[in-house]
Amino acid sequence: MKTIENISRMSTFVKIMKKEGKSIGLVPTMGYLHEGHLSLVKAAKKHTDVVVMSIFINPLQFGPKEDFQKYPRDLKHDEEMAREAGVDVIFYPSLKDIYPEGYATYVTVEKLTGNLCGESRPGHFRGVATIVTKLFNIVKPDVAYFGQKDMQQALMIRKMASDLNMDIEVKIIPIVRDDDGLAMSSRNIYLSDAERKDAVVLYQSLKNAETLIKNGERDARKVIKTVEDMIRAKQSARIEYVKLVDTKELKDLKMITGEIALAVAVFFSNTRLIDNITIMVK
Amino acid sequence: MKTIENISRMSTFVKIMKKEGKSIGLVPTMGYLHEGHLSLVKAAKKHTDVVVMSIFINPLQFGPKEDFQKYPRDLKHDEEMAREAGVDVIFYPSLKDIYPEGYATYVTVEKLTGNLCGESRPGHFRGVATIVTKLFNIVKPDVAYFGQKDMQQALMIRKMASDLNMDIEVKIIPIVRDDDGLAMSSRNIYLSDAERKDAVVLYQSLKNAETLIKNGERDARKVIKTVEDMIRAKQSARIEYVKLVDTKELKDLKMITGEIALAVAVFFSNTRLIDNITIMVK
Repeated sequence: MKTIENISRMSTFVKIMKKEGKSIGLVPTMGYLHEGHLSLVKAAKKHTDVVVMSIFINPLQFGPKEDFQKYPRDLKHDEEMAREAGVDVIFYPSLKDIYPEGYATYVTVEKLTGNLCGESRPGHFRGVATIVTKLFNIVKPDVAYFGQKDMQQALMIRKMASDLNMDIEVKIIPIVRDDDGLAMSSRNIYLSDAERKDAVVLYQSLKNAETLIKNGERDARKVIKTVEDMIRAKQSARIEYVKLVDTKELKDLKMITGEIALAVAVFFSNTRLIDNITIMVK
Repeated sequence: MKTIENISRMSTFVKIMKKEGKSIGLVPTMGYLHEGHLSLVKAAKKHTDVVVMSIFINPLQFGPKEDFQKYPRDLKHDEEMAREAGVDVIFYPSLKDIYPEGYATYVTVEKLTGNLCGESRPGHFRGVATIVTKLFNIVKPDVAYFGQKDMQQALMIRKMASDLNMDIEVKIIPIVRDDDGLAMSSRNIYLSDAERKDAVVLYQSLKNAETLIKNGERDARKVIKTVEDMIRAKQSARIEYVKLVDTKELKDLKMITGEIALAVAVFFSNTRLIDNITIMVK
C-alpha cells in the first residue's frame, strides 16, 4: 500500500493507472477509520481494480463552533487498518495543497440540503460538495463510495455528480453498527461511558418506529413523537432533530407513504451523533 | 465535421478519442460565430488533435431582464464557419439535456467576480462557472480557449480550473477587432448604423488612455475621466462602467502600476458592449 501526500503525485499515479486501463474506486474519509469505512473499502474492492482512500479533515465543512480542531486523528492506525482491508493507495494531502492561499471556488447543491443537517449546519454541505468535487477531479474515480449513515451527504453527492456530468457512479453502502446497534462513527470516541450506553437509544428508537410503521401507523407526527420520547428519556441526550422525510427530496412528510427515511441528530454533551433508517411503505 | 446533439453521444466520442491518445481542445461558445471565435479555433488547432466547439446559449448566465430570448442564433451559418475553420466536432446540446428538471448544482468563484461585470450582472458568473464546469466534465479537454474580450470570465475560469483541480489548461486569446477597432461580438448585430459608428469610441477611448499612460499619467481617476468624457461625447452611448483594475484580482486601482486592465461596459440602446486593454506599467 502506498501513501501519497500531495496532489501532483496523486495525479501522476492516476494517469498511470488510467493508461493501464485500471478502474479506480474512491473512498473519501476524514480518517480515524472504523468498520463503517472498511465496508466501503470492501465494496470498492469488489467493483474496481485500484482502491484509493482519501484521508483529509476538511475544514470547509465544519462550522466555527464545531469540532474541526479536535476531530480525532491517528494516521498510523488508519494506515494499518487500510492496509489490512486491502486499500491500494491512501491519499493524504495537506491543507495547503488542497486550499492554497486565495482559494475561492465553491460548489453548492441547492436541493436536498435545506432540511435535516443542512438546517443546523449552514455551509456544511457546500464544504462537502467542494472537497468531493476536488477529490473527484484529482482521483478521477469510476466509482465513489459513501456511507448511508451520512444519508443526506451521500444523496447530495449523487445529485451533484449527475448535475455536473461527472461520469462517476456514486454508491451508497449500508450503515455498519456496533453489536448493540450504535452506528459506527469516528465521533463515538468522544462519548463518556454513560453517554455511550445512552446513545444506543438512537437505533432503538428508530427500530421501535419501524415496528410502529410496519404495524400500520401512517401519521408522521405520532412516529416522530414516539422517537423523541424514547430519546428524551435518556438523561445525557439532547435532540437536535427527529425527522421523517421522503428519500427523493428529503422533505418532511405528514403522511407516511413511499420510501421514507427516519433521521435523527442528537447531542451527547458536545458530541453530535446522527443515525437513520429507510423504510419502504406501500 | 460532426455535429453531436446530446451529452451521452458526446461522452462516447470523447472516450474513443482518449483511447486513441488524442488531445482535445475545447472552444465554448454561444454560437453566432465571428472572427473572435475563429481565432480560438485557430489556436486550438495549433495545440490539440481534436477541436470541439460547443454551441449552447446558457440561460443561467443571463439576468431576467437580459437578452436570452433574443440572443442571435444561426446554427446553419455557424456550422459553415466552423467547418471552414477546421472544427472537428460541434457539440450542440439541448437545454433539457444540460439542465434537466430539478437541476440544482452551481459553481461559484468568490474572487475576481465582485467588480466590473459582476457588479451589474448578479448571478452571471455563477451561470458561466456552472456551464463551463459541465462542459469540461463532458468534453474532458486538455486545453480550453477563451477570449480576452470577456477578460473577467476568462480569468475566473482559469481560477476555477486551478481551484477545483480540473487539470485543464485555460488559454486566453487576444481580442479580434473589426477594421475600425470595434471588438468582435455576437451582440454587434443589434446595433443600428448610427450606434455602430458611435461604438468605435470604446476602442478609441481605450487607445487614447493607453497613450496617456504611456506618456506618464499614473492617476487612475484622470485616465478614467478621459475615457468617460470621450464615450459620453457620443450621443447613443450610455456608460455602465469605466474601470481601471489590476489584472490579478481585478480590484480598482488609484495609482497605475504593474499590469493593469482598463475595461469598459457601455450600452447602445439595449445593446451592452464590453471592451478592454491591458497595459504593463513599470
